[in-house]
Amino acid sequence: MRLTKGFWQTYKEVPADAEIPSHQLMLRSGLIHKSGSGLYNYLPMGLRSIRKVENIIREELNKIGCNEITMTVVTPGELWQETGRWDKMGGLMLRFKDKKEADLCISPTNEEAVTDIFRKTVKSYKQLPVGFYQINTKFRDEIRPRFGLMRGREFTMKDAYTFHMDKASLDAGYQEMYDAYTSIFTRLGLEFIPVEADPGAMAAADSKTHEFQVVADVGEDLIIYSQEAQYAANAEKAQTIRTKTEFNLNLSALTEVITPNKTTIEDVCSFLNKPYHYSLKSLVYIATTATESKLILALLLGDDSLNEIKLQSHLKCDHLIAATEEQMKAAKLWKGFIGPVGIFSDIKIVFDKSINIDGSYIIGANKKDTHSEGFNPKRDVKELIQADLRLARAGDLTLDGKHTVVEKRGIEVGHVFQLGDKYTKDMKVGILDQNGKLVTPLMGCYGIGVTRVVAAAIEQNHDANGIVWPKSIAPYQVYFATIVKAEEFVKIADDLYKEMMDAGLEVVYDDRNVGPGNKFKDSDLLGLPYRVVLGERDFGASGELEVIDRKTGIVTKVKKEELVSTLKNLLK
Amino acid sequence: MRLTKGFWQTYKEVPADAEIPSHQLMLRSGLIHKSGSGLYNYLPMGLRSIRKVENIIREELNKIGCNEITMTVVTPGELWQETGRWDKMGGLMLRFKDKKEADLCISPTNEEAVTDIFRKTVKSYKQLPVGFYQINTKFRDEIRPRFGLMRGREFTMKDAYTFHMDKASLDAGYQEMYDAYTSIFTRLGLEFIPVEADPGAMAAADSKTHEFQVVADVGEDLIIYSQEAQYAANAEKAQTIRTKTEFNLNLSALTEVITPNKTTIEDVCSFLNKPYHYSLKSLVYIATTATESKLILALLLGDDSLNEIKLQSHLKCDHLIAATEEQMKAAKLWKGFIGPVGIFSDIKIVFDKSINIDGSYIIGANKKDTHSEGFNPKRDVKELIQADLRLARAGDLTLDGKHTVVEKRGIEVGHVFQLGDKYTKDMKVGILDQNGKLVTPLMGCYGIGVTRVVAAAIEQNHDANGIVWPKSIAPYQVYFATIVKAEEFVKIADDLYKEMMDAGLEVVYDDRNVGPGNKFKDSDLLGLPYRVVLGERDFGASGELEVIDRKTGIVTKVKKEELVSTLKNLLK
Repeated sequence: MRLTKGFWQTYKEVPADAEIPSHQLMLRSGLIHKSGSGLYNYLPMGLRSIRKVENIIREELNKIGCNEITMTVVTPGELWQETGRWDKMGGLMLRFKDKKEADLCISPTNEEAVTDIFRKTVKSYKQLPVGFYQINTKFRDEIRPRFGLMRGREFTMKDAYTFHMDKASLDAGYQEMYDAYTSIFTRLGLEFIPVEADPGAMAAADSKTHEFQVVADVGEDLIIYSQEAQYAANAEKAQTIRTKTEFNLNLSALTEVITPNKTTIEDVCSFLNKPYHYSLKSLVYIATTATESKLILALLLGDDSLNEIKLQSHLKCDHLIAATEEQMKAAKLWKGFIGPVGIFSDIKIVFDKSINIDGSYIIGANKKDTHSEGFNPKRDVKELIQADLRLARAGDLTLDGKHTVVEKRGIEVGHVFQLGDKYTKDMKVGILDQNGKLVTPLMGCYGIGVTRVVAAAIEQNHDANGIVWPKSIAPYQVYFATIVKAEEFVKIADDLYKEMMDAGLEVVYDDRNVGPGNKFKDSDLLGLPYRVVLGERDFGASGELEVIDRKTGIVTKVKKEELVSTLKNLLK
Repeated sequence: MRLTKGFWQTYKEVPADAEIPSHQLMLRSGLIHKSGSGLYNYLPMGLRSIRKVENIIREELNKIGCNEITMTVVTPGELWQETGRWDKMGGLMLRFKDKKEADLCISPTNEEAVTDIFRKTVKSYKQLPVGFYQINTKFRDEIRPRFGLMRGREFTMKDAYTFHMDKASLDAGYQEMYDAYTSIFTRLGLEFIPVEADPGAMAAADSKTHEFQVVADVGEDLIIYSQEAQYAANAEKAQTIRTKTEFNLNLSALTEVITPNKTTIEDVCSFLNKPYHYSLKSLVYIATTATESKLILALLLGDDSLNEIKLQSHLKCDHLIAATEEQMKAAKLWKGFIGPVGIFSDIKIVFDKSINIDGSYIIGANKKDTHSEGFNPKRDVKELIQADLRLARAGDLTLDGKHTVVEKRGIEVGHVFQLGDKYTKDMKVGILDQNGKLVTPLMGCYGIGVTRVVAAAIEQNHDANGIVWPKSIAPYQVYFATIVKAEEFVKIADDLYKEMMDAGLEVVYDDRNVGPGNKFKDSDLLGLPYRVVLGERDFGASGELEVIDRKTGIVTKVKKEELVSTLKNLLK
């Protein structure tokens, strides 16, 4: 593209609401244009990158025989009502009525729609397994959209769905998709980790799920990671062991101590001059199932945090919500002074399994401004229940006890998930197996945030001067900056541009009448893999052009006859 | 694609709501799947055709330097409020509020959004002219969506917009786009006519607009056409001359005749035994401008029809609505007996210019059950106003009087339009020209209904057995139907499939275990350009395969060594 003919504009100022580098750089380099809160138009340069991401995804999914379709962006409420998700999806789903007062929504995901296609088309086990995918517009009505394309309201997503006759086939299909994802993110040039994720309390016990996380400081997800052990899991899901801890094994009688206004572990332990893990943290929750609602007291070592998902999964409840101060008061619990002894309400108590039940701990005394020392779980609790409740953290050990894990921040760009029969059951899908028996097929679903991938790639690949694109998804491959005025050199530059184009190279030809400083600044900001400079003086003297690697800054001088072959080699 | 591995299903039954061939065939051949009223998912075969249409459009627009972007499907109400269209767009635009009670809509068109991009990016005349296009999802909340993709609610559209410093540049850009459209629809293999359309009463007098119409019986648009004169116009816009008409030139006094219950031209003229064009048709309208509302009486020859757009354009009013019977009564006008003489109300009278003012006519007498004979416009009307009001029709002559026009029905698949400064003015866009003067740029807009093109192509290209795809947009090029069982023949078929694929041919390999009848039926229904049949018996006997042209039915026998080259030749 000749810049004098095409449409591209960079910006110097950083918009106030752009907090992270990728958001700032995408706006400054003219890849996107803000249309409204969480709404971004894709400008030509940005769209080219997005298309490259789409094509890599498409190629890898076509390879494994997944069928590309397109489902409507607006979907009828009826479909969602069949699975009960019309009510359960919550505020992120944008719902509205059409002229005939029929329920519609802008689909944030498409399990119901694809299951409807499947049940109306596939009748025999011979047609299974079968997979579908689409690359399409999605909308989630985030209250606080932020980070540009990273968490926008409208975004492009690839969502895929597979259908299987049995778990073995689902497992095989899941692995195939997992491998395709690995190929996709590798080709995209991203540093990523597939991490074990939590399938949720409602999923089957053997349901698998992984997130594909791009490692980046601004990531909203916490990953527990050990390279040596090849272990990676979302912190919510991670299974680790607390490092060896020295407990207080000197038992003594349970004794109240006055701790005025000391409501946190930090305050109490400082006041009593004890390490945090000599105390127990007490957290009150309300667990709800279809039939009952129950108060829960979760106890952890003072320096540990609760993993709510683990607690919910232990309790097998539908909802788990932290109790409010009012709810605590109603149960005669003093916030900041709660403990497992002397409770006046019906409450279920669960101890984290990292707690050494032979130890002595500081606990809340269930009286205002009072704690107790000398609590010994084994001695002081009648029916002791222990479960894995703590949130994994850096410094923990892998389950085999051999490796120490670290924490990394990740941007979730992909997700693979075994759905099981949730949707096929609710939507009454039946397939005859080879014995003529009606079987409810199993499903998997698999997402990639296409536009988020572009933002994540920039988040991971930039420097002080701008973007440093991975080669596979750069909008163009070469920035051809000319600093020539004499007509003979303009002709050489034009010829070289034509030669590069004819060779199939993707070239931005900066033929604008602006100084070299501006051209180089724009070139660095846009961050195409290679910059080629034709300077009248240098070229006139040595007949050479400069090829500059955006990432390393390494400059190679080449004769014009070698330019195309040099670039082709570099871009391999 | 091997049918035993891919996803494709044909249907025998025709859904009740599918009224026209293209809709029926798209459902029966498994191209689309209905998700809700006016909402269709694109299945793999359908999506492939849509993508081919998109790519042809993309290639031709890229050729003329138009810049591809993507604007958000959901757009903020604020933008529409700047031009006043938030209120004017009417019910087709789906509006809703987000969580923060901000106005949003699913954009049915994007003039405001693209003008917003332009004004925030383009500052100098040097950057103009510039054009943008997108291929994206649109939604119009039609009350009666019908004909499948032809008039769906959600659809894919290509919309393009250009910006210019002056009318000369707009005209040049318009012509360039017109030519690109001609290339596009030619490549799509469609029989189409670019027709002059009406720019609307609000447009500048010199504003150009054309519709690209695909000729088809089910088309909703009426086209006035003369191949010899190379003239084509939407009936609403068409300028023609009424064929030579013999008028009644025997003047006589205005005389009332009793015509009980004769309220139509047909009834009155039969009753009085006169040809229809010896009478005048009286039509009452209410014309509204910002400042006033006025009664209008339009008069036409008895066998002519009114072109409301011509009347509105003559009156230069904002709205023109036929008067209701109540409104007529209030003006003391008897429906069925209205005429230009003896009116008691303040009413503006306009005569169509085909009326020979020297003639004698039957008119309503403005009394119940009464008409008058002997009305002579020149004699009986004080201030006679004549204008072109009649709707063109088959049998009329072109303006030069040399050619007779015919009527054709068309499906509008494209539209090019000179918008002028409507949006740039409302949205306060200013560009500095070479003299430093602030200029309001002019715009053009250009649409193609991508998914409608696919439906229109099928409407124009099908027979009793199914679709007959134009080569350029068929989902695949070749249907390879094998009727072989012996393992040696299966191997030959597999090898041939591989050979065709390696040669870059797009092949559906029907390797299903079903009879030849089913395969041929499915093949005809899907309508790929060529069917290749490998029959064990024939192939065994002569070593030849059959290549059948879907359109002509012509069968060519070829040796397997010649198959690929034969197909490549045919597909050229």
